[in-house]
Amino acid sequence: MALVPTMGALHEGHLSLARRARTEGGALVVSIFVNPAQFGPSEDFARYPRNLERDLERLGPFAPEAVFAPSALDVYPSGFSTQVDPGEIGMGFEGASRPGHFRGVATVVLKLFNLVRPSVAYFGQKDFQQCGVIRCMVADLNVPVRVVVCPTVRDPDGLALSSRNSYLAPEDRHAAPVLYQSLRLAQEIFQAGEIRASALLDAMQSVLAGEPRISVDYTAIVEPAALKPVAEVETGHVALVAARVGATRLIDNLIFGPRCATEAELIDSAFPQSAPR
Amino acid sequence: MALVPTMGALHEGHLSLARRARTEGGALVVSIFVNPAQFGPSEDFARYPRNLERDLERLGPFAPEAVFAPSALDVYPSGFSTQVDPGEIGMGFEGASRPGHFRGVATVVLKLFNLVRPSVAYFGQKDFQQCGVIRCMVADLNVPVRVVVCPTVRDPDGLALSSRNSYLAPEDRHAAPVLYQSLRLAQEIFQAGEIRASALLDAMQSVLAGEPRISVDYTAIVEPAALKPVAEVETGHVALVAARVGATRLIDNLIFGPRCATEAELIDSAFPQSAPR
Repeated sequence: MALVPTMGALHEGHLSLARRARTEGGALVVSIFVNPAQFGPSEDFARYPRNLERDLERLGPFAPEAVFAPSALDVYPSGFSTQVDPGEIGMGFEGASRPGHFRGVATVVLKLFNLVRPSVAYFGQKDFQQCGVIRCMVADLNVPVRVVVCPTVRDPDGLALSSRNSYLAPEDRHAAPVLYQSLRLAQEIFQAGEIRASALLDAMQSVLAGEPRISVDYTAIVEPAALKPVAEVETGHVALVAARVGATRLIDNLIFGPRCATEAELIDSAFPQSAPR
Repeated sequence: MALVPTMGALHEGHLSLARRARTEGGALVVSIFVNPAQFGPSEDFARYPRNLERDLERLGPFAPEAVFAPSALDVYPSGFSTQVDPGEIGMGFEGASRPGHFRGVATVVLKLFNLVRPSVAYFGQKDFQQCGVIRCMVADLNVPVRVVVCPTVRDPDGLALSSRNSYLAPEDRHAAPVLYQSLRLAQEIFQAGEIRASALLDAMQSVLAGEPRISVDYTAIVEPAALKPVAEVETGHVALVAARVGATRLIDNLIFGPRCATEAELIDSAFPQSAPR
């Protein structure tokens, strides 16, 4: 059985996970749960978009055997106290900007795995560090679930799909693709032979600096296993970017690799045995 | 399939868990793993008794379908970082005296559950807080394993069996039953009608104070769900004691209840649906 865990507000990115699960056979369960534990106290839990009816409509074509949409009290009954702490891989980047975020993610994903008991679960590459945290948790805790990472789905102008894109004012939506533009430039320079992370980061930052509506939170180039910054870039290393566009915080990433590599090959170079074929 | 998780150095207490598992049918797996993660840096990990050959011999009569005795590197490969943090129930008592202890316990037990995938696992009441931490972890993380708590097995003079009893010098072994004597006195006074925790604790402490070789770490009377101290004692509440006897730290506990109650009934009053019948 396959699980696609989501927080609802389903977009083409989520649907691509359901589609992939369907091509690999077996029953499909989609979970929809806006997990309070992965939001900080000053974050957007209250206004995070929720529309179960529309989500169910969008899932219709994939005919999931079950949609699991528990209440917060179902998931966290009174007295709940055990936490899954991802350790080092969850500390930097999103973990540093959003304290407690990955503990909330790891805890709820383990709970969903234990409740649904899938053999395989699908996650989007857009949340790269989350993919790493979950793969690490699964390996460390011997969880009998295969974690498959699927390529980021983008709007035609390159903006990575995210439920939070709905927060963007029109001018901000216009500026937002610059995150992906900075990543694409780094990839092109890498493919032209530049392997110094500092040079690739400079290029990214100069692109981002050209967009006044954007305030960069971090850019980094890391190896994928523990997200440690690297000095020299090779295939499978990853460029990460997080930025505020207007009032909305967005993240994106790109896996370095040769011009000829498919998305699945790039994912496999970062997350071996994870990429769907 | 049933799992009896142990750290080896098997005594009658462990064997009573295997015996109980056998009476309930199904395959039996016994794990033997001295878990470094649950020992503090100044604790007895290095000298903890290990004798796999003798353990296997003692298990012989129960003919387990498998004995799982992994190496530390099998369980914690390089890069291991995810931890299971029990939260509040693991903070006081043993958790306060042994920082990190219950995180180590919860993490390894969840790993063993995921590796062995039993439907039921057996633990000894002697480690009362550990039983609570594991039951809490299983409930919080929706782990599909039933946790059964079995009565403490004691030497004829009342000393709770523990692998650490082998550390006791003869004079200390002679003094050690005073822990259980203090608990028995509290039970007798409770059964005679005294429900003030303060009075029961006074009685325990006066017994313990009579033994000069003993240095008390804590005594407490708590409710069993979150181990919060209570002022008025009722059936299912628990007296806890930890003390150093010479150089050896021992723990013991007793569940309050009426004179007529069986051990299984007392365990069920503290851990509903856990006690084996």
